[in-house]
Amino acid sequence: MADKAECNRRIVLLQERLKTGGIDGALLIYPIDIYYYAATRQNSALWIPADGPPRLMVRKSLSRAEAESTVETITPFPSGKNWPEIIGSEFRRIGLTYDVLPLQQFNFYGKILPNREFVDISALLRELRSVKSTWELERMRHSGRELSSVFAEIPEFLRPGMREIDLSAEFEYRARKRGWEGYVRMRAFNQELFQGLAVAGQSAASPGFFDGAVTGRGLSAAAPHGASTAIIDNNVPIMVDYTGVFDGYLVDMTRLFVFGALPPRVQEAFDVALKIQGELAGALVPGAICSDLFTRASEMAVAAGFGDNFMGVPGEQAKFVGHGVGLELDEMPVLALGFNVPLVENQTIAIEPKFVFPGVGVAGIENTFAVGTQGGEKLTPLPDSLVRL
Amino acid sequence: MADKAECNRRIVLLQERLKTGGIDGALLIYPIDIYYYAATRQNSALWIPADGPPRLMVRKSLSRAEAESTVETITPFPSGKNWPEIIGSEFRRIGLTYDVLPLQQFNFYGKILPNREFVDISALLRELRSVKSTWELERMRHSGRELSSVFAEIPEFLRPGMREIDLSAEFEYRARKRGWEGYVRMRAFNQELFQGLAVAGQSAASPGFFDGAVTGRGLSAAAPHGASTAIIDNNVPIMVDYTGVFDGYLVDMTRLFVFGALPPRVQEAFDVALKIQGELAGALVPGAICSDLFTRASEMAVAAGFGDNFMGVPGEQAKFVGHGVGLELDEMPVLALGFNVPLVENQTIAIEPKFVFPGVGVAGIENTFAVGTQGGEKLTPLPDSLVRL
Repeated sequence: MADKAECNRRIVLLQERLKTGGIDGALLIYPIDIYYYAATRQNSALWIPADGPPRLMVRKSLSRAEAESTVETITPFPSGKNWPEIIGSEFRRIGLTYDVLPLQQFNFYGKILPNREFVDISALLRELRSVKSTWELERMRHSGRELSSVFAEIPEFLRPGMREIDLSAEFEYRARKRGWEGYVRMRAFNQELFQGLAVAGQSAASPGFFDGAVTGRGLSAAAPHGASTAIIDNNVPIMVDYTGVFDGYLVDMTRLFVFGALPPRVQEAFDVALKIQGELAGALVPGAICSDLFTRASEMAVAAGFGDNFMGVPGEQAKFVGHGVGLELDEMPVLALGFNVPLVENQTIAIEPKFVFPGVGVAGIENTFAVGTQGGEKLTPLPDSLVRL
Repeated sequence: MADKAECNRRIVLLQERLKTGGIDGALLIYPIDIYYYAATRQNSALWIPADGPPRLMVRKSLSRAEAESTVETITPFPSGKNWPEIIGSEFRRIGLTYDVLPLQQFNFYGKILPNREFVDISALLRELRSVKSTWELERMRHSGRELSSVFAEIPEFLRPGMREIDLSAEFEYRARKRGWEGYVRMRAFNQELFQGLAVAGQSAASPGFFDGAVTGRGLSAAAPHGASTAIIDNNVPIMVDYTGVFDGYLVDMTRLFVFGALPPRVQEAFDVALKIQGELAGALVPGAICSDLFTRASEMAVAAGFGDNFMGVPGEQAKFVGHGVGLELDEMPVLALGFNVPLVENQTIAIEPKFVFPGVGVAGIENTFAVGTQGGEKLTPLPDSLVRL
């Protein structure tokens, strides 16, 4: 749990940006936004004026919020008529996170705080949170070590003839025993993920809604992502891609396994994935432009003859090769076209060059890195090589 | 997966209500709303005019949506400028689900469909979905049998001295091997749940954000719900409360275990919980008023001397005793004050009278029932009694 100094540093940075933007305060309602600034995710609203101390107003549980939070002023959630006193009329422009705030909530706050101008501060909050503190990097290194330890055990329980869902169950069991926390938070609308995926052969190459390279077949049309009941055969690529969530902070990693040998084109694609990852990890320095890194990766894939297979099912390919991680799986920045922004030191990014071969399977690698002046620091310490069993 | 006849029946019911309400069509964007009417949750938008055939517009994956969906007209997601042709100006009043639609999404659709009036159809959709078809009831009976089978195995792996998280890991492992699907969908803003919870003794009685009676301590302030690393002792109540999600449909159930004997007051409260459940299950008939059922439960708790412990930590008590379940954990109806609406045959409701004793532990029971003319049909077939080990 972040201490008071940690949270206060974050609040000061936000307040500076609010002032620069002519915004009089931020009203945070979404749990993980509150957690970042107040060290609690109890059901509440956090008011951070551009100037002055924050105020946490708690629906449930007040006693737990008081025990956890670093904020000094903690009160029960006010009734509607008291809000205009608490957030006085001098606060005219108020920031909200439009990317996650349902319309019903927005209308509620619009009603209890009349005659204000609301503005979207989603992008600002995501930008601020993308750069990790020393304390946060330590949390993420811890998550990386824990998750890597589970990956290291895979050869002990992966067997040919088991179902994808059995492999998932074995992995998840060991992760939970280590304290893997539960839900994987995603910010993007319409995205959802359980813990990760263990998929093999042609079922791994199924197309899907998920904004990633590999979806898997899943267990039903209601849960069309991750492991299915398909049997894991010899001589097919077995991809294990899991998140590690500990103390709120997550890392993301992928390794490839095979009983016997990969089909030659899949082996070749895996080697290309390693090269792309190496290239990008070396280039993960402050100032590097996100879209340039995607272009470089994409060009390497095309040059190797795998352009149509890069980052998804041909024709439905994802248009990124890396994504920020931290408290959420889909943080900033994204290594993708359109993201013409420079990397900042201590941003944390999962790099995941992957290839999909319909009817055959998938190949790829993923590690989480911190942006550093000497290139990316790998936070998921485990060899990248194909594990032949 | 729902077949065409099943989905078409649902669409016809919605269209009737849209016409009655003077709404020209429903534009569904939220995955589970789309799944209910189109049998796919691929990333898409589903347009259901009050009159005429629906149209599914898919962002990702088009091929998978085509393979899964019962809708006849399936197209790629249109560019913004084509929307006014697809949803012509004769469709003036358009329904959206304001309870889950983020403001950014609302603004997007407001921009590409100018000069329309948008109205909130969240409550309408939730009401329609609360009544299950024969096919849906069969799915939920299946989920109930699968989940009950895992509960029946608990005596094989529950041991004194294990940690709450170990018990969770063992339970979840077996559920996954049976095909438990992954995420538990919740509609309410700010709520989140992993699979369920296994909690014991005083850590079970921790207060928390979750809109339920029992929260548990969890693993950190970032994941303050469910199992913690606390050791499970002798002579304390051990509560196992899990969802069963199969083919999209979920049930919810709770059982109580103990090594040795419960503290007398906790044992007494458990017996009261059974009586309340019995009373409510018998009264789960069409026409019964939801708020009356809560009042009856609450009065029984007070009469037994447990009013302060009913449904939560004293002072932070949840104000319901049952909740609809189906594709989401928090469906309609809710057995709570304010819900002055009659039950309808084939609604499915988890009834969960529970008691919290700070510093001691929790007691209670939970089963999922279908509303029937002879009272509730129990969908989670396992004895309710305290399991003494």
